[in-house]
Amino acid sequence: MAPPNKLTLPLTPICLLVYLWCFGVFMTLALGSKARHFKWEVDYMYATPDCLENVVMGINGQFPGPTIKARAGDTVVVHLTNKLHTEGVVIHWHGIRQFGTPWADGTASISQCAINPGETFVYRFKVDKAGTYFYHGHYGMQRSAGLYGLLIVDVEEGKKESFHYDGEFNLLLSDWWHKGAHEQEVDLSSNPMRWIGEPQSLLINGRGQYNCTLAPAHNSNGSSLPVCKFRGNEQCAPNILHVEPNKTYRLRVASTTALASLNLAIGNHKMVMVEADGNYLQPFSVNDFDIYSGETYSVIFRTDQNLSNNYWISVGVRGREPKTPQGLAILHYKSTTSSKLPNLPPPKTPQWNDYTRSKSFANKILAFSGSPRPPTNYTRRIFLLNTQNRINGYTRWAINNVSLNLPSTPYLGSIKHGLTSAFDQKSPPETFVNTYDITMPPSNPNATYGNGVYKLEFGKTIDVILQNANALNANVSEIHPWHLHGHDFWILGYGEGKFSKKDEKKLNLQNPPLRNTVVIFPYGWTALRFVTDNPGVWAFHCHIEPHLHMGMGVIFASGVHLVGKIPEEALSCGLTGKLLRSNNHN
Amino acid sequence: MAPPNKLTLPLTPICLLVYLWCFGVFMTLALGSKARHFKWEVDYMYATPDCLENVVMGINGQFPGPTIKARAGDTVVVHLTNKLHTEGVVIHWHGIRQFGTPWADGTASISQCAINPGETFVYRFKVDKAGTYFYHGHYGMQRSAGLYGLLIVDVEEGKKESFHYDGEFNLLLSDWWHKGAHEQEVDLSSNPMRWIGEPQSLLINGRGQYNCTLAPAHNSNGSSLPVCKFRGNEQCAPNILHVEPNKTYRLRVASTTALASLNLAIGNHKMVMVEADGNYLQPFSVNDFDIYSGETYSVIFRTDQNLSNNYWISVGVRGREPKTPQGLAILHYKSTTSSKLPNLPPPKTPQWNDYTRSKSFANKILAFSGSPRPPTNYTRRIFLLNTQNRINGYTRWAINNVSLNLPSTPYLGSIKHGLTSAFDQKSPPETFVNTYDITMPPSNPNATYGNGVYKLEFGKTIDVILQNANALNANVSEIHPWHLHGHDFWILGYGEGKFSKKDEKKLNLQNPPLRNTVVIFPYGWTALRFVTDNPGVWAFHCHIEPHLHMGMGVIFASGVHLVGKIPEEALSCGLTGKLLRSNNHN
Repeated sequence: MAPPNKLTLPLTPICLLVYLWCFGVFMTLALGSKARHFKWEVDYMYATPDCLENVVMGINGQFPGPTIKARAGDTVVVHLTNKLHTEGVVIHWHGIRQFGTPWADGTASISQCAINPGETFVYRFKVDKAGTYFYHGHYGMQRSAGLYGLLIVDVEEGKKESFHYDGEFNLLLSDWWHKGAHEQEVDLSSNPMRWIGEPQSLLINGRGQYNCTLAPAHNSNGSSLPVCKFRGNEQCAPNILHVEPNKTYRLRVASTTALASLNLAIGNHKMVMVEADGNYLQPFSVNDFDIYSGETYSVIFRTDQNLSNNYWISVGVRGREPKTPQGLAILHYKSTTSSKLPNLPPPKTPQWNDYTRSKSFANKILAFSGSPRPPTNYTRRIFLLNTQNRINGYTRWAINNVSLNLPSTPYLGSIKHGLTSAFDQKSPPETFVNTYDITMPPSNPNATYGNGVYKLEFGKTIDVILQNANALNANVSEIHPWHLHGHDFWILGYGEGKFSKKDEKKLNLQNPPLRNTVVIFPYGWTALRFVTDNPGVWAFHCHIEPHLHMGMGVIFASGVHLVGKIPEEALSCGLTGKLLRSNNHN
Repeated sequence: MAPPNKLTLPLTPICLLVYLWCFGVFMTLALGSKARHFKWEVDYMYATPDCLENVVMGINGQFPGPTIKARAGDTVVVHLTNKLHTEGVVIHWHGIRQFGTPWADGTASISQCAINPGETFVYRFKVDKAGTYFYHGHYGMQRSAGLYGLLIVDVEEGKKESFHYDGEFNLLLSDWWHKGAHEQEVDLSSNPMRWIGEPQSLLINGRGQYNCTLAPAHNSNGSSLPVCKFRGNEQCAPNILHVEPNKTYRLRVASTTALASLNLAIGNHKMVMVEADGNYLQPFSVNDFDIYSGETYSVIFRTDQNLSNNYWISVGVRGREPKTPQGLAILHYKSTTSSKLPNLPPPKTPQWNDYTRSKSFANKILAFSGSPRPPTNYTRRIFLLNTQNRINGYTRWAINNVSLNLPSTPYLGSIKHGLTSAFDQKSPPETFVNTYDITMPPSNPNATYGNGVYKLEFGKTIDVILQNANALNANVSEIHPWHLHGHDFWILGYGEGKFSKKDEKKLNLQNPPLRNTVVIFPYGWTALRFVTDNPGVWAFHCHIEPHLHMGMGVIFASGVHLVGKIPEEALSCGLTGKLLRSNNHN
């Protein structure tokens, strides 16, 4: 079988212009202007993410949604109209801290009421820090349904990055199921729970190839997939990154996977890690790197390889036994024809359960010199035990034995307005019993539902020790990437087993990296520190969407009395809606 | 192949009691009390409506939803909690006129805001008239998703029906697709439109048998389906009606199909039609009867056949070329064993396109003597031309060239509060050009979107002439069952071709039946008359859900100034929500 002999770039510059026009992106063109306006409509549409047609959630007819490009200091204004027929929608701007605009964080039940069908909500927020970000749905399983896109913030006009590059590319990584997100929700909420299984495909910029590959001759991960039958301009044809030889490129990579932990590599090319979650790193060289759901990285690489070849960029599953073929893109040296397929095999993804390797990589990530350091002491330390449980036969994830069940009135409004009946007023547990055996399935698998809030004093230093444990089945402990809204945190360290006094001295207070997402490894702990410097209510949760759906998250509230007037549109539902209507009896 | 030899009644009396308890139905048991309270939760669930597992929309874990039983004059109070994750929900009480409670009509965008996830809306309304009714979702395609059930209103305590019967059974008819309702919505809204096709199964009380039959030896409709492999207690096993010989039974039949027009027959048994849509009929005898989506009938029949046999009750498709096997239930004479299958074939459904037969039946339906007669003269006559059109490439249905696009603020609130920007203030056309050729595809297939309202003066007599026409394809004119909310109307007559002056004298003002649903036959017209005696905003639309979804409806408003205080919960969205919040700036 001969490989397909034509691969063309589906987004030509002309198409791009037409896209920008058609999809209603009207950017303020006046020089010096810092408000960037976007008019978006969310609707379901048919697409072929992995060559199989499926319903996806698109924005302005695009999947993934349009890439927002802005500069540090700009204000992004997204007029989001919900064109769905019966569903609400919100969009979370992942990694944007929303200083002063906690109602624009885009989390249903937390920062705002979901936008009703036919209605428009205006997200207006400042992107204060350059970096690689993304956005996604944060209601039900709408991220799994395909509601996501990139948000790239460049340095301020006239400023330069500390590292040089000649060009840049963005890769948005996601995983894809053929079963619709609604049905997945029903599966997860069934008794007994029906697990959604591993994704059918991995997508790079919304493109995957289900059950076929362009690299059959040397499929590196042992599968025997048939050759993809491309004619060249399919929606699912792999992305091609056109590069000049002997140049330096920046690759911005974001993972919005629902489940999969990934590893990315470029055939023959070394990369240098320079940015993570919008924060600069102490540069270090890698052949490949792990990226968990909710994380972003920038790497730079030099096109210093044989310029008569092209090279595979491969993305594969780690942390779970992989049942999904690698996602592929092509690095195309302009010195060759773009139709030429790489003659080397795609880089092999490291063994999925080689956690020593994963931890080694994680521990190499350190802050760029001159980055802010964490306060030396913490005010409060919260231990969060991650367990899988059962409640009345339903499978749930719980934190300190409480499984998050989001309220119908968003916290930001109910706390601001003192509506105490909107959620559990009792604070959730600060820790777990110290006799808990994290190496075994829970001896008592029963947990409770809850929606209480950790009230954090404003302006204080908070430590969180995320403690992993064994799941319901013996000898299973999963990876969980935890994402904090509204803040970056310092990763003070990772460790094995249960966190204990003796681990204290291992914590890195010198050059810990600032991130918004951090993983806990199986049977291990992760320590992080942050300062409550952002008034609002903020979710902190496992970024695996089905895990969050099954209760794996907590809520932090801090300085809500300092929050300014919340737009009424964010409060129109539930008890806040009732309150706002209560003075006016028509 | 031997027929399955065991069929047991899935709903034993004990099960029923448990159901009543478990599903949270708490009926006021005090004698004389007239308020009947129900606590319902709507959620998706897995079920096997036609033996194939699928996601359905259920109420309290039941599909179809629980049957409400009440007496004329009672107040029904349903506390409806939305347990869906991201979707709003409403329930329409089909056939209940909602005198004084137009906000309880359960139509999203018309009578109320959809109930948000996690929230509860209380439907409180009087069932003033005995009869056979049902309820169903009225938002997006939630009826197709399975949100429906029966509402049976008996005569007042101590009163008797004018006809005698020894027992009664309820049959709720529906059609079922294996493709989910969300995907159907996307199909219908795609450009080009993707038609959902014929249903995979017909369900009787939520039970159908996909791709198999219990009557293979004598399958009457020419298909060659294999024998169903039942073990006896499947969710999809056909309903069995256990009867004593030589008794009279009442069969209450309601059709909530999304698409299918049906015909029902009981093997060897004649039936007498006695009630339609909650109104008594001049009794007449039939071997079978047509029932369109939105209609209900009561028939009485006598168990006067060979008491050593059982008999099939069959339901088949009419009005569209049938591609769906008959739906079946079993009439079981208690003198036989319930495991005995009927030895006669299921009654054959009449030829789908024998409209002469359909019209003959429709014309036999006349009011019971003593029923209210229509006013002799009308105040206003509105002609509504039914056409299939295209708007910017989208396939739509239009009325007088306007395709209904529901607003995000419900009409009842926006009219009551004078919010003129909530919808088109221009009234839709009262008629269509008299040169329009109804026998041909539209010469100009372009229509426009609209959401204007027919403002009807209160207390007047309105005539509506529904005029059918050719669809987009040549030689196609479909059946459309039109349903009016908030009122019954008199069916003054049906006719061929375009309604004209000469048809005037054919109208029946003597004993026209009162109904809430009436069909227009291909290339024909239907004349109806009603009195605007119910303040509110009322939908009048084709009850085929995909047709309504594609714009096939109009809105009538009458006496809205007479409407009492609308519960705020019905107004919490869109511009009414904004208005109610506007006096209170927290």
